[in-house]
Amino acid sequence: MNYKVVIHTLGQLLKALSVILIFPFIVALIESEFSVQILLAFLGPSALCLGLGFILAHGKLKDSTFYTREGIVIVGFGWIIISLVGMLPFIIATAGVEELSDLSVIDWFFESVSGFSTTGASILHPVSGSHQIDIMYETGYKSVLFWRSLTHWVGGMGVLIFILAVIPSSAGASGIHLMQAESTGPTIDKLVSKMSSTARILYLMYAALTVLEIILLSLASIFDSKMNIFHAFVLSMGTAGTGGFAASSSSLGLYGPYVKIVVTVFMLLFGVNFNIYFCLLAKKFKDILQSEELRFYLGFIIVAIFSMTLIVFYSMKDVFAEYSSFGDVAIDVSFTAVSLTTSTGYATKDFTIWPDICRYMLLLMMFIGACAGSTGGGFKCSRFLLLVKIALVRCYKVINPRGVYSVKMDGKRVADETIQGVSGYFAIYILILLLSILFVAIDLSVRGISDLVTAFSSVLTCLNNIGPGMAPAIGPSGTFFGFSIPIKLLLSVLMLLGRLEIYPILMLFFPKTYSRGI
Amino acid sequence: MNYKVVIHTLGQLLKALSVILIFPFIVALIESEFSVQILLAFLGPSALCLGLGFILAHGKLKDSTFYTREGIVIVGFGWIIISLVGMLPFIIATAGVEELSDLSVIDWFFESVSGFSTTGASILHPVSGSHQIDIMYETGYKSVLFWRSLTHWVGGMGVLIFILAVIPSSAGASGIHLMQAESTGPTIDKLVSKMSSTARILYLMYAALTVLEIILLSLASIFDSKMNIFHAFVLSMGTAGTGGFAASSSSLGLYGPYVKIVVTVFMLLFGVNFNIYFCLLAKKFKDILQSEELRFYLGFIIVAIFSMTLIVFYSMKDVFAEYSSFGDVAIDVSFTAVSLTTSTGYATKDFTIWPDICRYMLLLMMFIGACAGSTGGGFKCSRFLLLVKIALVRCYKVINPRGVYSVKMDGKRVADETIQGVSGYFAIYILILLLSILFVAIDLSVRGISDLVTAFSSVLTCLNNIGPGMAPAIGPSGTFFGFSIPIKLLLSVLMLLGRLEIYPILMLFFPKTYSRGI
Repeated sequence: MNYKVVIHTLGQLLKALSVILIFPFIVALIESEFSVQILLAFLGPSALCLGLGFILAHGKLKDSTFYTREGIVIVGFGWIIISLVGMLPFIIATAGVEELSDLSVIDWFFESVSGFSTTGASILHPVSGSHQIDIMYETGYKSVLFWRSLTHWVGGMGVLIFILAVIPSSAGASGIHLMQAESTGPTIDKLVSKMSSTARILYLMYAALTVLEIILLSLASIFDSKMNIFHAFVLSMGTAGTGGFAASSSSLGLYGPYVKIVVTVFMLLFGVNFNIYFCLLAKKFKDILQSEELRFYLGFIIVAIFSMTLIVFYSMKDVFAEYSSFGDVAIDVSFTAVSLTTSTGYATKDFTIWPDICRYMLLLMMFIGACAGSTGGGFKCSRFLLLVKIALVRCYKVINPRGVYSVKMDGKRVADETIQGVSGYFAIYILILLLSILFVAIDLSVRGISDLVTAFSSVLTCLNNIGPGMAPAIGPSGTFFGFSIPIKLLLSVLMLLGRLEIYPILMLFFPKTYSRGI
Repeated sequence: MNYKVVIHTLGQLLKALSVILIFPFIVALIESEFSVQILLAFLGPSALCLGLGFILAHGKLKDSTFYTREGIVIVGFGWIIISLVGMLPFIIATAGVEELSDLSVIDWFFESVSGFSTTGASILHPVSGSHQIDIMYETGYKSVLFWRSLTHWVGGMGVLIFILAVIPSSAGASGIHLMQAESTGPTIDKLVSKMSSTARILYLMYAALTVLEIILLSLASIFDSKMNIFHAFVLSMGTAGTGGFAASSSSLGLYGPYVKIVVTVFMLLFGVNFNIYFCLLAKKFKDILQSEELRFYLGFIIVAIFSMTLIVFYSMKDVFAEYSSFGDVAIDVSFTAVSLTTSTGYATKDFTIWPDICRYMLLLMMFIGACAGSTGGGFKCSRFLLLVKIALVRCYKVINPRGVYSVKMDGKRVADETIQGVSGYFAIYILILLLSILFVAIDLSVRGISDLVTAFSSVLTCLNNIGPGMAPAIGPSGTFFGFSIPIKLLLSVLMLLGRLEIYPILMLFFPKTYSRGI
C-alpha cells in the first residue's frame, strides 16, 4: 500500500472541499443571512479543510502511481471525511436555535451522509405545528438548506472524479482506479483515452444538464407562485444527484404540474448512463440504439407507469377527492415511479397509502434502480439484466452440461470476470440487506415498534440511496429522526455502502486491505 | 433425447405408484372403512397406474443409458404425473360429502402437490363450526388422511430414488442423473460406488428413522389420550418427509410435551444430510466433525432458539396466560424454529402473532432451510455457506485483483463448476421469488386484499416447501383455500420447483430441452 499517495490525494480532497464550501457562503450573502454564526458555519470548515489540505498535500509526490487497492481506500476514507466535514455547517449554523435543538451530532452526520450519498432521507421533522425544513427556510437558514442540497450535486457525480477533472495532474495514470471505485455499475467505460479528460467531459455534461433544469424551473416562477431561483437551484441539484432533499417539507407537492413534469423528465435523464449522452454528442447513434440497458430502463418504467396509473386511479378515485382527475393521477404516478426508480426520492403524493400491489411494484423498482454510470442508485439495470442472463445460461448448462454458452450484452460477449463480479456483488448485496434488516428489526422490536415493512424498507431505501421508505413513518411525509442512535449509524453506513457500491466501505474493515505487499 | 428411456422409466414409476396406493387401502381395511367409494378411491387409481405402467414399460430396453437431460425430464414429468395420480383418491373418496363439497379439482391437485413436495400447505379449512380435517378424521376417512401423509413420506426421499432402490436393473449406470435431479443440494455424494446400493442405503436409513419415531410416538398413547397408532404413523411420515400434514386441525397443539419434544428431535434429524448418518454407520467420525454445514445448521438453530425464547417469553407472558411458563415457551419456540428451518411446517402455537423480530428471524430460517441431502427444503445451509464464502472471496479479489483465491468447504477446494452453479441458482431462485410475489400481489389486490406479508410469505413458504406462511390468513391456523385458481396453480408450480430445486420443472418450459442432438 502506497500510503503517501493516499494521504496526498485526501489532502487534495480537503482543498477541493474548502472551495465547495464557499458556494453556500455566497448564497448567505445573496440572501442577506449576515449572522456571524452562519458566516462562520461555512468559512470555519472551509479554512479548516484548506489548512489540513495543505498539511496533507504539500510538495510534489515522487511516485504518484497507485492501484485498485489504493483507489478503494482513498474513496472509502475520502467519503467518510467529506461526510464528517459536511455536518459541520449544520451543527455550527443551527446551534442555539430552539426549534432545532433536539437534533444531535449523530442526526446531522446522518443528514450529511444522506446528502453526499444522494439518498435524501432526512432527520428533519415536524415540531410544534410546523416542520423544521420550513422553519429553516423562513427564519434565515436558506444558505444551510442550499448546502444540504449542494452535497447532493457534489455526491452525485463523485467528489474524487471532480478532483480528477479540475486537477488533472493529481492522480495521473492512476485515475482509472479512483473512477472505478467512485462511479456506479459493473464495468467502467473510458469515454476518451485520457482519464482526466473523461472526468472533465462527464462533469461538463452533468453541469450542462443541471443548468438547463435550473433555467426551465426558473421560468416557472412567472406562473407558479411557490417557485423562485432558490427553489430552482435546490430542486435541480437534488434532481441532478438523484438525491431528494427539497426546499419545503411538502417536497414536490408544493408546485404545479409544470414543475412536476420538468422534474420527472430530468430525473429520468439523470438516471441514464452518461455514456449515452457522450454517444449523442459524438453522434454514435448506433451505440445508443444497441444499448440493452437503456431499452430495459425505459421499457420497464413505461410499463410500470401505465399499469400503476390505472390501478391507483380506479382504486382511489372514489375514496379521495384529490385522486379524481385521471391526468393528475398520471402525473403523480409517473413522478413517483421515476423518482423511486432513479433513487431520487422526491414525492408529490404519499405513495405509502397506495394499494399494496403498487407498493410492491415500487419496491421492485427501488431494488432494480437506475442505469449503471448514472448518478442514480439501486442494484442497477445492467447488473439486473446480466443476472437474468446468467440465470438463463445456467439453465442451458443444466440441459447440456458440455455445451459452451456465453453471456452477451449489447451484442458483445461479457467477460467471465464481469460475470463473476456481478454474481458475487449480488450475493454480498443480499447478505448485507438481510443482516441489516435483522438489526433494524431487533432495534424496532426492543422499542416496541413492530413493523416488518418499516424495517425492510428503511434498509432498502438507504442501501439504494433512495430516501423515503414504503411505510408511513418513514414515507415521504415521515422522518428518520425516530430511529435509535445505533440504527442511524447503521443506516449511514448503508447509505455509503450503497453509493460506493459496497467495496470501498466494506474493504476498510478488512485487515488484508492494509497489509504490506500486494 | 432418448425418448424411449424416458417413457420406460415413467412406466416403471406408474407401476411403483400402483404398489404405493395399496397401503392406504390396507389402512381402510384396518380402520373398517368399508364403503365402496373409499375402496375404489385407492384400487381404481392403483389399477390405472398398473395398466398404464405396463403399456409404457413393457419388454426390455435395448439402450438404457441416458444423461443429465433425460434424467431431468424424467423427474420433471414424473413428479407432475404422481401429483395428478395423487389427487385421484381425494376426489373419488370425498365425492358427494357435503362438508367437503366446496373443494374443486384444483384444490385437490394443490393438496396432492403439497403432499408429494413435502410442503404441507393445505386447502382444507373450517366449515360450519368444525374443520374439514377433523370431519374427515371423525367420519371415516382416516385412510384418505393416511394417503395424504404417505405422499409426504414418498416425496421426502424421492420416488425415483425409490425405484432405483427397489428395481436396481432399471436405470443401470444412468441412475446418477436421476438421483442428481431428484435429491437436494448443490452437489451429490455417492455413498458407495453402485448407484442402486446408494439408493437402497438411503431408503433403509430413512425407513429406520421413521420406524423409530413411530415406536417412540406410539409409546405416548399410554399417557397422552390424543395419541394412537394412526396418529403416530401420520406424524412420523410427515416428520420424515419434512412435510407437515397432521391428523388434526390443531396440528401439534393437540398433544402433550413428550410428543412435541420427540417430533422436534426427529424434525431436526431429518433436516440433516443423510451422508452424516452413513458416516456414522461407517464409523467415519472425522468426516462428521469436519462437516461445516452440520455445524452451521446446529449452531444457527441453537442461537435462534435461545434468543427467540427470551423474546417471546418476556414480550408475551403478561399478555397471554398460555405463555406464562418459561419451560412451555422454550418447548414451543424450539418446536417452531426447528419445524420452519427444516421446512416441516408443523405448529404448536400460532407464531404469526409473535413479535415481528421473531417473525423476521423465522422468515430468515425459512429462507436458509435445512441441510443439503436431507429431506428438508429451502435454499439449503450448504448453498448459503457457499454464498457467504463466494462473497468473501469476491472481497479479496477486489483488494487484490491479481491474487488467486479459492473457496474451500470442509477443508477441500470447491470446484468452479459448483461455485458457478450456486451463484446461478441463487439468481434464478431470487428472480422466481420476486416475480411470483408480483403475481400473487396482483391477484390479492384485484380481490381487494391488501397485504404484502401474505403475498411474500405464501410464495416463500411454497417455494421452500414449508407449509404455513407468516401472516394469520395462511399461518398454522389458516388455509390456502382462499387463493384464486390461477394463484393455486402458480403456488403448485412453486412447490414442485422448490422440491426439485428448480431445474427439472423449469426445463420443461425450454424448447431446447426437447431438441434432437445433444
